[in-house]
Amino acid sequence: MTRNSLAPLNCSLARSLDLVGEWWTLLIIREAAFGTRRFQDFAERLGVARNILSARLKRLVAEGLMARLTREGSREVEYRLTPKGDALFPVLVTLMQWGDEHCVDHAPPILLVDRVAGQPLPKVEVRAADGRVLALQDLRALPGPGADEELHQRLGRPRVAALMKAV
Amino acid sequence: MTRNSLAPLNCSLARSLDLVGEWWTLLIIREAAFGTRRFQDFAERLGVARNILSARLKRLVAEGLMARLTREGSREVEYRLTPKGDALFPVLVTLMQWGDEHCVDHAPPILLVDRVAGQPLPKVEVRAADGRVLALQDLRALPGPGADEELHQRLGRPRVAALMKAV
Repeated sequence: MTRNSLAPLNCSLARSLDLVGEWWTLLIIREAAFGTRRFQDFAERLGVARNILSARLKRLVAEGLMARLTREGSREVEYRLTPKGDALFPVLVTLMQWGDEHCVDHAPPILLVDRVAGQPLPKVEVRAADGRVLALQDLRALPGPGADEELHQRLGRPRVAALMKAV
Repeated sequence: MTRNSLAPLNCSLARSLDLVGEWWTLLIIREAAFGTRRFQDFAERLGVARNILSARLKRLVAEGLMARLTREGSREVEYRLTPKGDALFPVLVTLMQWGDEHCVDHAPPILLVDRVAGQPLPKVEVRAADGRVLALQDLRALPGPGADEELHQRLGRPRVAALMKAV
C-alpha cells in the first residue's frame, strides 16, 4: 500500500506528521521562531533550494501555521508564525533536547535560555496532573472519543465516558 | 544547494530530523511504544509497504533507536525500542497533543492516561528551572559550547562560560 498522505490515518500523530514531517518544515518553523521573516533569509540560513522553500512556505501558509504578510508601503513579503505554528514550540524543544542528548558527540550548538532568570532551559518532562514525572511505561493508550472501530479493537473499550468526565 | 542529509547542519534539531524526520519513522516508533514487536504487525498496523518498513527499521537499528532481537529457541525476530528510542517519548507526546489541538476537527482518537491515577495526561509544558510555564518568546537562543562561527555571528557572543557554570 502506497500513501501520498498520512492524513487518513486516524491518529493525531499521523496527521501532525503529515503537516510538519516533510523534510525542512520543522527547520523552517525553527527559523521563524528565531525571528527570520524574509524568504531570502530563510533560503540563506537553511541552505535550502528556493523551489523547495517556496513549496514548504506555501503549504505552511495554506495549513495555517504561518501567515504571509506585506508591510504597509512596502512590497516586501514577510512570513510569520501563527498561533497554530507557535504551538509547535514544545515539539521543537523536545526534539532539540533529544538531539542534544542522543545525536551530538560534542557539546550542544545552541543553548536555550530563560530570558527572565537567564538560566538554561531544563529538560521538558511529561508530567501527570499531580506533577509526577512520567515515563513511557507509566502511560496507557485508550481509544478516545474520536477513535474508529480498528482503534477500539486494538486498545480495548474502556470507560471513556467516565474518563472524559474526569477531564 | 541540494542536500541528501541534514546531518552537516550544526543544530541538534537538524540532526534529530535527519534521524526521525523520515516519512514513517516516528509512526514506527509510536507503534513500538504501544507494544508492537513483529515486522508483520508493524506492516499491518501502519499500512506501510514492506520494503519501506524494512529500510526504516534497518536505519533505526543502525542508529541505535531500536534493537533487533531473536528469542531464544525461536527464529522469530522482534524489534524493541532502546533507551535512545524510548527517549523520544516527549517528542511523540508533544506532537500528538499538538495534533489533537490543531489538526483534528473531531475529538481525539487516542487518549493517553496516567496508569497510576487513571487520569488523562495534561498538556506537556515547557518550564523554567523555577517551574514557570514558558512560551516561545520567553526563551533566548544563545550559541552553546558546540556552536560554530556562523552560529556565533547569528546569535551573538554572550557569556556562555558563565552560563554553563550555572547549569
